[in-house]
Amino acid sequence: MDSRREVEESSTAPILESKRTRSNGKGKSIDGDHSPPHAATVVTTKATPLQKGGMKKGIAILDFILRLGAIGAALGAAVIMGTNEQILPFFTQFLQFHAQWDDFPMFKFFVVANGAAAGFLILSLPFSIVCIVRPLAAGPRFLLVIVDLVLMALVVAAASSAAAVVYLAHNGSQDANWNAICQQFTDFCQGSSLAVVASFVASVFLACLVVVSSVALKRT
Amino acid sequence: MDSRREVEESSTAPILESKRTRSNGKGKSIDGDHSPPHAATVVTTKATPLQKGGMKKGIAILDFILRLGAIGAALGAAVIMGTNEQILPFFTQFLQFHAQWDDFPMFKFFVVANGAAAGFLILSLPFSIVCIVRPLAAGPRFLLVIVDLVLMALVVAAASSAAAVVYLAHNGSQDANWNAICQQFTDFCQGSSLAVVASFVASVFLACLVVVSSVALKRT
Repeated sequence: MDSRREVEESSTAPILESKRTRSNGKGKSIDGDHSPPHAATVVTTKATPLQKGGMKKGIAILDFILRLGAIGAALGAAVIMGTNEQILPFFTQFLQFHAQWDDFPMFKFFVVANGAAAGFLILSLPFSIVCIVRPLAAGPRFLLVIVDLVLMALVVAAASSAAAVVYLAHNGSQDANWNAICQQFTDFCQGSSLAVVASFVASVFLACLVVVSSVALKRT
Repeated sequence: MDSRREVEESSTAPILESKRTRSNGKGKSIDGDHSPPHAATVVTTKATPLQKGGMKKGIAILDFILRLGAIGAALGAAVIMGTNEQILPFFTQFLQFHAQWDDFPMFKFFVVANGAAAGFLILSLPFSIVCIVRPLAAGPRFLLVIVDLVLMALVVAAASSAAAVVYLAHNGSQDANWNAICQQFTDFCQGSSLAVVASFVASVFLACLVVVSSVALKRT
């Protein structure tokens, strides 16, 4: 099955002309016109989709680059937080003198969520390549929107809960009688803050990815 | 200018047939066929947009309902957290005996973010109505995707950071020497947890809104 689309002009004279030409193409010579029968039709059919496809191909390449950025940021956040540890060389008034990332469940969630986001983003790369090769395909594009949206929510949630813990570690809470542990564990707090920033960068990349995919889905 | 789209079958015999019919419509009777020339074309042209418009109108109505749900959840979360307060009738080993929602900056952010989300969602209702009235308009639909995406990130961030504080208030942290204040302030913690749950419900509504708008933007 090959289906052809033919966009014809409104005025009647060119319609008659083109019909005669096409009949001519079937080998039934009505008048003496011997112009190549399908040339005009082919130009009209392919011009608009090609232009749109070019714009969408550019969007798909931007999508791929943003995706690489998001992978880097999420992976970096997970690695920085996952290797975050500090052993103090002296005793303080506190009992513990060893801070590690898995002391707080929010930091565990942070590492798992950012690692999972990086993994799923790597798995989504082939679909992004499909979108570059076939810019007008709506199916893979729609799949990418859903995946990016879920990953964005996951990364934002991980970054925010870790940021809350980092804030409390820095400032403590007078009302709840919680001490600012960053006065002792400076390196640990610095590593945690860096990981949180990297995770927020990853979520900004993911938000841009969703916006870019929405632009690509938009029927303009 | 009215441009007609004609999708023709692949086999040569029907193409010749349809061409003869159209030539016939112009008054040049080649054979004895007298079928109405434009009837089939008109049906093909108008059926698809109408059907698509109906589907998109349904999506727009679903969007409106989800939006109302998100407004209710976000507003509920902000009000529950904003009125959250507990005064203990007795002294404990702690100095304070009065817990209020603005003791923690994360809870302040929570109230502001959920209130702002509810406000912007109310402001976006007219655009949602425009999408119901004109289902094929891509502009307002695209605006709604962007607004919903930003609000979703905001609400997820607020809910997650508040959830981290609520978790610490419930369980404390042995390693950081933070006490579980919920052992004293039970009602306060219950209110906070309820607000966090309401906020997560709002973010699920917002995620559904983004997905629904993406479906509407999809060119199928």
